[in-house]
Amino acid sequence: MEDFREWGHKLIDWVADYLAHPERYPVLPAVRPNDILNALPPTGPERGESMETIFRDFERIILPGITHWNHPNFLAYFAITSSPPSILAELLIAALNANAMIWQSSPAATELELAVIRWLLDWFGLPTDWFGTTFDTASTSTLHAIAAARVRACPELRDQGAPSNLIVYVSEQAHNSGEKGAMALGFGRNHVRRIATDAEFRMRPDLLAETIRQDRANGLVPCCIIATVGTTSTTSIDPVPAIADIAARENVWLHIDASYAAPAALAPEFRWILAGCERADSFVFNPHKWLLTSIECSVFFSRDRVSLRRAFSLGAEFLDTRDAGVNFMDYGIPLGHRFRALKLWFVLRYYGREGIARIIREQIAMTRELHDRIAADPRFEICAPCHLSVICFRMKGSDERNRALLESINKRAEFFLSSTTLHGRFVIRIAVGNMATTRETLENLWLRLSESASVNI
Amino acid sequence: MEDFREWGHKLIDWVADYLAHPERYPVLPAVRPNDILNALPPTGPERGESMETIFRDFERIILPGITHWNHPNFLAYFAITSSPPSILAELLIAALNANAMIWQSSPAATELELAVIRWLLDWFGLPTDWFGTTFDTASTSTLHAIAAARVRACPELRDQGAPSNLIVYVSEQAHNSGEKGAMALGFGRNHVRRIATDAEFRMRPDLLAETIRQDRANGLVPCCIIATVGTTSTTSIDPVPAIADIAARENVWLHIDASYAAPAALAPEFRWILAGCERADSFVFNPHKWLLTSIECSVFFSRDRVSLRRAFSLGAEFLDTRDAGVNFMDYGIPLGHRFRALKLWFVLRYYGREGIARIIREQIAMTRELHDRIAADPRFEICAPCHLSVICFRMKGSDERNRALLESINKRAEFFLSSTTLHGRFVIRIAVGNMATTRETLENLWLRLSESASVNI
Repeated sequence: MEDFREWGHKLIDWVADYLAHPERYPVLPAVRPNDILNALPPTGPERGESMETIFRDFERIILPGITHWNHPNFLAYFAITSSPPSILAELLIAALNANAMIWQSSPAATELELAVIRWLLDWFGLPTDWFGTTFDTASTSTLHAIAAARVRACPELRDQGAPSNLIVYVSEQAHNSGEKGAMALGFGRNHVRRIATDAEFRMRPDLLAETIRQDRANGLVPCCIIATVGTTSTTSIDPVPAIADIAARENVWLHIDASYAAPAALAPEFRWILAGCERADSFVFNPHKWLLTSIECSVFFSRDRVSLRRAFSLGAEFLDTRDAGVNFMDYGIPLGHRFRALKLWFVLRYYGREGIARIIREQIAMTRELHDRIAADPRFEICAPCHLSVICFRMKGSDERNRALLESINKRAEFFLSSTTLHGRFVIRIAVGNMATTRETLENLWLRLSESASVNI
Repeated sequence: MEDFREWGHKLIDWVADYLAHPERYPVLPAVRPNDILNALPPTGPERGESMETIFRDFERIILPGITHWNHPNFLAYFAITSSPPSILAELLIAALNANAMIWQSSPAATELELAVIRWLLDWFGLPTDWFGTTFDTASTSTLHAIAAARVRACPELRDQGAPSNLIVYVSEQAHNSGEKGAMALGFGRNHVRRIATDAEFRMRPDLLAETIRQDRANGLVPCCIIATVGTTSTTSIDPVPAIADIAARENVWLHIDASYAAPAALAPEFRWILAGCERADSFVFNPHKWLLTSIECSVFFSRDRVSLRRAFSLGAEFLDTRDAGVNFMDYGIPLGHRFRALKLWFVLRYYGREGIARIIREQIAMTRELHDRIAADPRFEICAPCHLSVICFRMKGSDERNRALLESINKRAEFFLSSTTLHGRFVIRIAVGNMATTRETLENLWLRLSESASVNI
């Protein structure tokens, strides 16, 4: 244990120094596939080694191969961010090593999770009597939603197996976790409808209604609609109120994927993004994206705890009684259950709703400023409305030119940006979300982009 | 960041003190359902709070509700254990916050995972060219195995959906994750066969072969056999060589659930438990159970990476090229991927194969000693062979008497034991697996049991 104490103090200082200046490292590592693998021995050590040796190899072999998600210039995918209280909580989570698979196996871990779920429901304006729990990732949460929707549409599937006539609806801009989850569950991709979007990349409710009508006419059974609040490419926001009308009329499960965007609703001026979500059957968002929580932490809400239990509990009773304690194992695939609630609790309390809103508001404002500069420059074009912290743009000219621009930036590891395809064209994305990113970061990015647009690259 | 540094040092000392003496806390908390929930405010804080306030509430509200998995007297379920190098690695994992969803998003996290997977395959005597990755829990790993088995049996299900004639085989002693995973995937429980076991709780290959024959005669399609090395109730070890013969002859996917037991094979004298596993299609074990790694960490191996990709990748290419880097997102449900490999690497190096074997060997030896004492005492009976670190026993007499004994022990929070049902009778389980548990712990447990057996309780 003295080894733990000594190295614990050393690593705390190392982490504090690292997080104070992540920009000392290149945002993208200068490694090719297999470089790291080849630097490691092909077999494990027969005898134990000292922490000193291990940590030296961590700095020598591992760190040079890390993509630094903490780097201020990490602006790819959805930039994610951890925070000091989350990291401190992770230390306690690992030390307690509690497994909240059932209430008895860790009452405090179970009930703290129920408590922070209620706080979040309240902050989002969702019904606070919904059930909620945490999973590793949004893809897992969404798969749980589809499985619960399926068993609600067809309760006998628990014994008989799933029928082959059930249909899932997503927009063509939805994250592929919906289609992937449906395929993994055995729906078949032919039973996933990709509804077209409008000019602002939002699911078209008229086409959704029409597709459902056609499916019913063909003897198929609409089972689950997945609407997105903050799509992966453009952060577009599906018209949830209109989609909820259709879901209610058609008696189809409505799942909301707000994995990235939900925390913006903690700022009152962005509360509108969740309009209609209180009418959904389930809802996922990832604190490990934009809520200052370290990976992995996906929060899953559902109004229909009975269907969740039907989908995932082998028992015959589908209603738990609060008096006996909640057993999370009955509501999902995993049996083991990490004490993720502790890091959420640390984060929500350390920052408070107002503190989180302030950070997000600031990130949206600085994104807006960069957006306006790009929009005002005739060499560039904006490719999608910018509501939150993502900009989709391109240089006027060929896809090749834009691809070359992106490659030149990422190759030099000055910034890390990613791309998407919109209307068949290559589009560069800037995603702000890391707490280390400042106005100065985006100012430097603008200078780099502006310079690139002026020269042949 | 100075807040992080200050509290980081405080928490390192707190954790070091906690882990040096977890026995200062009761192993089971004296709380009833909702006690913790009611001690927490119904809504989250509007403004941020100090780490001091948060940590004070952690000690005041959360700790008294924790079931202490680190307590030497925690002998329930499968006792699990973390270790100093794992906890230190968790701190770095949280700080780096790397997401290894694709190679580029963290080359070192991806390749370190491939490296430690290879080390483990080598140590277990499994083919080192198998694919492997990590998931949260064994239930998740097993669900992945079943889904991959299904798509191999029926490749067109990617587009057409799963047919309703596929069958999964488990033993009646298998963990319910097999049946639950199959049900969640849409198989229907009527399509899960529970094969009877022999007198030592091992799957009977003759009955497996006969059941498969009958299913084929009825036009059903055998899809996946799940054999267990170290069952949850008794740690029985299914006859994998004979089952592998059947799987090969019938061309059925063979999945091995060695979630608990696999690490014992790191001691040469227990290598026999994995006999035949090299012929399986997939294999799961949980380092977070008996390999000194903090929760969550489940390792999943498979020889058939193509079927995994068919089950979980929306792309049309089912072979990755090592030259382009491995993208873990193509091999499973989760997109986000925590840097779990780092804690595995720290643990495997800190202890070495020999160091891990020494710890496990010692735990098995002390379990054996307690077993022999119980077996030699005419007041008790042993209810299942004790191969590894679990004892199944009961006092001679009624189920009620045994239930009362277990309740009296757990209620006083002296020890935490769990129970199972064997041949319709209530059986008490002692599961050794926590590094803090010593011979003295088990000596005290024996005194307590012996005393209880002498009095009317």
